[in-house]
Amino acid sequence: MPKVKIRKKILIANEEFALQNRTFLKDRRLPCLNCISSPGSGKTTLLAKTIEMLKGTLNIGVIEGDIQTDIDTRRIKKAGAPAYQINTNGACHLSAAQVSYAFHQLPIDSLDLIFIENVGNLVCPSTFDLGETDKIAVLSVPEGDDKPAKYPMIFARAAAVIINKIDLVKGTDFNIKKVKADISRLNKKTKIFLVSAKTGQGMKDWCAWLKELI
Amino acid sequence: MPKVKIRKKILIANEEFALQNRTFLKDRRLPCLNCISSPGSGKTTLLAKTIEMLKGTLNIGVIEGDIQTDIDTRRIKKAGAPAYQINTNGACHLSAAQVSYAFHQLPIDSLDLIFIENVGNLVCPSTFDLGETDKIAVLSVPEGDDKPAKYPMIFARAAAVIINKIDLVKGTDFNIKKVKADISRLNKKTKIFLVSAKTGQGMKDWCAWLKELI
Repeated sequence: MPKVKIRKKILIANEEFALQNRTFLKDRRLPCLNCISSPGSGKTTLLAKTIEMLKGTLNIGVIEGDIQTDIDTRRIKKAGAPAYQINTNGACHLSAAQVSYAFHQLPIDSLDLIFIENVGNLVCPSTFDLGETDKIAVLSVPEGDDKPAKYPMIFARAAAVIINKIDLVKGTDFNIKKVKADISRLNKKTKIFLVSAKTGQGMKDWCAWLKELI
Repeated sequence: MPKVKIRKKILIANEEFALQNRTFLKDRRLPCLNCISSPGSGKTTLLAKTIEMLKGTLNIGVIEGDIQTDIDTRRIKKAGAPAYQINTNGACHLSAAQVSYAFHQLPIDSLDLIFIENVGNLVCPSTFDLGETDKIAVLSVPEGDDKPAKYPMIFARAAAVIINKIDLVKGTDFNIKKVKADISRLNKKTKIFLVSAKTGQGMKDWCAWLKELI
């Protein structure tokens, strides 16, 4: 069964790098959150706003994953945080090896918290361990309230779920009660934040939760 | 290099089914459009509205791809078209073999047009040939105007791009001119439709384009 063997080899290579990353972070007591969502859910806006709000309290570094362009890294740097861009050139998720390299491109000893912004994809990144401390799922209101039921994997694994663009909920059929119940059914422990990174609504609770991680 | 060989084998298996699907469609002069987008861009709403608007003019069948649930198939049937649900149970795209099977679960001889609604994912489905006549990309306004630059693959390959939820463009910084230029840079031939499947705006032009395919 060579197919199985090789699939196993690829996974083992990723797991070895993930283990290495986990040890690296643990030795430094440095939390690292792997943010996963569809394209356009507002991950970069959320991170930029978080960086601005926690300026002077937490030193945040960001590893950006994108298929192409460095648009997001430029936005993060503009918000005042160090950032390193990984371009996957077509690959649909970041790998632990890429993240391992990226750690050393950040001023690691001065950081309190690292965010990894994964490639915009609600499916593949959720199954690749990067050695992160926790996964964070971002779901935006315009995507619809059926997404946790249809794409359960990341919601089942996330330490926190951000429901972003909550300012757009009025006048839509997005049912907050239903989406919260669907997420809780998949993952009883996850913390759910209703947020608008654009208007700032709900950001204080999210930032308070981040401060508790340190 | 066993890794290369096996990757090749998987691709060859998919290509064989894709070729078979392409011949099957050609023999019947039956166009089949593979719709690709992020989760929540409004593919199902677009297809449901299209089915309603073309009722009595075109007989449309739909193959639905989802990781889990049959929510979308139920919506399509409610709109009045036959639909068959494929659940990928975790896989991030449909395969040509799955589509080959699904063709025979539809009343194929009575159809004028088939839509495949792929798994919500802007990355992986764009590289898997299903034997479709053409690929269609759907991008929704809330995802942001930077997506063609950041996820170029599907925009480079699509015969048409639907920019959906155009009713939400007012008051945002979504730049229609920029997004059109970015798409045209990737793909000179692609047809771009500005649409709101919810309000009906722009749907007539899209439906006229579909009628020309028959």
